[in-house]
Amino acid sequence: MGKVLVIGAGGVGTVVVNTMARLPEVFTEIMLASRTKSKCDAIAERIGNNRVKTAQVDADKVPELAELIRSYKPDIVVNVALPYQDLHIMDACLGTGVAYLDTANYEPPEEAKYAYSWQWAYKDRYQEAGLTAILGCGFDPGVTSIFTAYAARHHFREINYLDIVDCNAGDHGKAFATNFNPEINIREVTQKGKYWENGNWVMTEPHEIHKPLTYPGIGPKESYLIYHEELESLVKNFPSIKRARFWMTFGQEYLTHLRVIQNIGMARIDPVIYNGVEIVPIKFLKEVLPNPGELGENYKGWTSIGCRIKGISKAGKERTYYIWNNCNHEDAYRETGTQAVSFTTGVPAAIGAMMYIKELWKKPGVWNVEQFDPDPFMAELNRLGLPWNEKFDIDLEL
Amino acid sequence: MGKVLVIGAGGVGTVVVNTMARLPEVFTEIMLASRTKSKCDAIAERIGNNRVKTAQVDADKVPELAELIRSYKPDIVVNVALPYQDLHIMDACLGTGVAYLDTANYEPPEEAKYAYSWQWAYKDRYQEAGLTAILGCGFDPGVTSIFTAYAARHHFREINYLDIVDCNAGDHGKAFATNFNPEINIREVTQKGKYWENGNWVMTEPHEIHKPLTYPGIGPKESYLIYHEELESLVKNFPSIKRARFWMTFGQEYLTHLRVIQNIGMARIDPVIYNGVEIVPIKFLKEVLPNPGELGENYKGWTSIGCRIKGISKAGKERTYYIWNNCNHEDAYRETGTQAVSFTTGVPAAIGAMMYIKELWKKPGVWNVEQFDPDPFMAELNRLGLPWNEKFDIDLEL
Repeated sequence: MGKVLVIGAGGVGTVVVNTMARLPEVFTEIMLASRTKSKCDAIAERIGNNRVKTAQVDADKVPELAELIRSYKPDIVVNVALPYQDLHIMDACLGTGVAYLDTANYEPPEEAKYAYSWQWAYKDRYQEAGLTAILGCGFDPGVTSIFTAYAARHHFREINYLDIVDCNAGDHGKAFATNFNPEINIREVTQKGKYWENGNWVMTEPHEIHKPLTYPGIGPKESYLIYHEELESLVKNFPSIKRARFWMTFGQEYLTHLRVIQNIGMARIDPVIYNGVEIVPIKFLKEVLPNPGELGENYKGWTSIGCRIKGISKAGKERTYYIWNNCNHEDAYRETGTQAVSFTTGVPAAIGAMMYIKELWKKPGVWNVEQFDPDPFMAELNRLGLPWNEKFDIDLEL
Repeated sequence: MGKVLVIGAGGVGTVVVNTMARLPEVFTEIMLASRTKSKCDAIAERIGNNRVKTAQVDADKVPELAELIRSYKPDIVVNVALPYQDLHIMDACLGTGVAYLDTANYEPPEEAKYAYSWQWAYKDRYQEAGLTAILGCGFDPGVTSIFTAYAARHHFREINYLDIVDCNAGDHGKAFATNFNPEINIREVTQKGKYWENGNWVMTEPHEIHKPLTYPGIGPKESYLIYHEELESLVKNFPSIKRARFWMTFGQEYLTHLRVIQNIGMARIDPVIYNGVEIVPIKFLKEVLPNPGELGENYKGWTSIGCRIKGISKAGKERTYYIWNNCNHEDAYRETGTQAVSFTTGVPAAIGAMMYIKELWKKPGVWNVEQFDPDPFMAELNRLGLPWNEKFDIDLEL
């Protein structure tokens, strides 16, 4: 039915191609490319049956990307490389006339400040070229945004309060490790907090606001208000939202490690001269920390991510709603060889590509996922290992 | 009277040449050399009056060292470079017929395991060449060993129990910094503990044994049993010692930072390949941590280092004895531009060189400082800013 090029061979890329390989009726041809071809080869070999082709590409180089796209001729490029590379890959897709999908918005390498503005700026050019770009199609952003669109369509006349809650109650048995690229993870969680209230962004100190929240099947976990990228598009696409926040659980030991990493200067993103060579401390730290892709083997426990929503029901009454997915690290590992954090990000990216190939999500321009029909996507989540649950009119704790 | 070459332009080197420059009757000519000549120039400029000459030398290269020694013709070389360089500098002194003094014993770069054996192995060669080598002439090792020799000469028939206690009750106002070279400091304090008891070395886990000890003018501070190099030579030179231990104070925050630095892999001393270049994590960490030489400006409070001794008095009675120095960080900074930890190490090194030049400490061979006459050294400590105090027949807490 369709031909796909996946760029990025980390934990998420592994899950994306695993999921696609199980759906030959949709993904008739799959290619996985990254800077290090041997990583792609290892992933392809585990999948077997020559289902996945591999290639070497430097995603920082637009001409190299364009050449690969021109020779392979995919219907869509799925970008699960680094956020710094989003614009290069968008440029290459635009130049070669191919659709685009990613899971994390652009962030300039020299500043820890991600935002959609850079990618939204491509809207007219994608529209004029008749090309579809789907932004933020992982779990959060991604499924959380689709959960919100689903709630808005089926259960609410208007959504007034949105709290996205992200709990990782898993234990990987290491003193310290990040669940995805340490560089991106540490940049994200050490920044100032930010939430939307009454038409304005309210800033907080990092981890200033926190409270215990109860996660289904897990129990209470201290949860910290942090800024997360889907808030930017959701308050724009659902203007009835009065307050939108994002909460993430962290253990005390994790926070202590983060604090020390900042104190000793290893979270710095500006280069340090070492023996005459420029080295960015956080990039070097990534080399010595455990590889998130290899955490899966001993990872136990669950993740629980969802949306807690308050608003006015279709019938005009005040209503609360909680929609969530719980994902098990051990099951994820058995299925794909990676842990739940990669699994919950990679499966939605594959579903997003499927939505495009099936022409269910296809419109020229640059779009966030909540701007498409949530229903077929929600059905695939249940089928492909990320089943969701919902509760109505409960205490949201928020 | 004498000509001295100082190698190493860190905080200790700064104090050494400052102290020597104030003693023109002893040190008629002073040269400071290091890998980075500009550091030497900056130190020399602060001292002024062209008292200190400077030179560039790579202390890892014996021929380069020998060439500098041959051209400058010093009476003694004072080594305050890195412990890895001790043997190179000893080789160069031996080859050029010049006396040697250092403040820290040799440690191979690829293993955190310092010991005197490598340097003691030079004894016969120094003896045959008629050359004096003085090992470990800082504060600890150095003054602590001389305190012990002084106690043995004047107050004890035999020393049975020796506890060296090292308290830094200063506050530098930084979240985390080490008081001397972070690489050496972290290697030292993260190793297993070790002490001497009844003719054997007893091993402990790192920081396993600790208790609060009361420091004069400071009060109680949690003190941790760690291994420290002077124990090796002291139990050999004072064979009546039944138990010898070393205690150092650490704050909880300092220990937390150390624990995280180890957990995240930044204390590793084996190289990691980063962008095709071999980088040793702990050496890179040194680049991002605050420079210990620059801590002085805001450093407040005191250090207190001394020996708590129990044994049999000259009169044959059981006796306890506590001898210590308290040093003030602010005073040290006013005097030399560096903090007390550099000050307490650098002043004794300068006094040791003075002892050699005055021919009070001059005998062919390789010697630890407790093997020389302690009395003239003790008198200079009082004169040069490190006055000592003593108490008899008190509760040692140990």
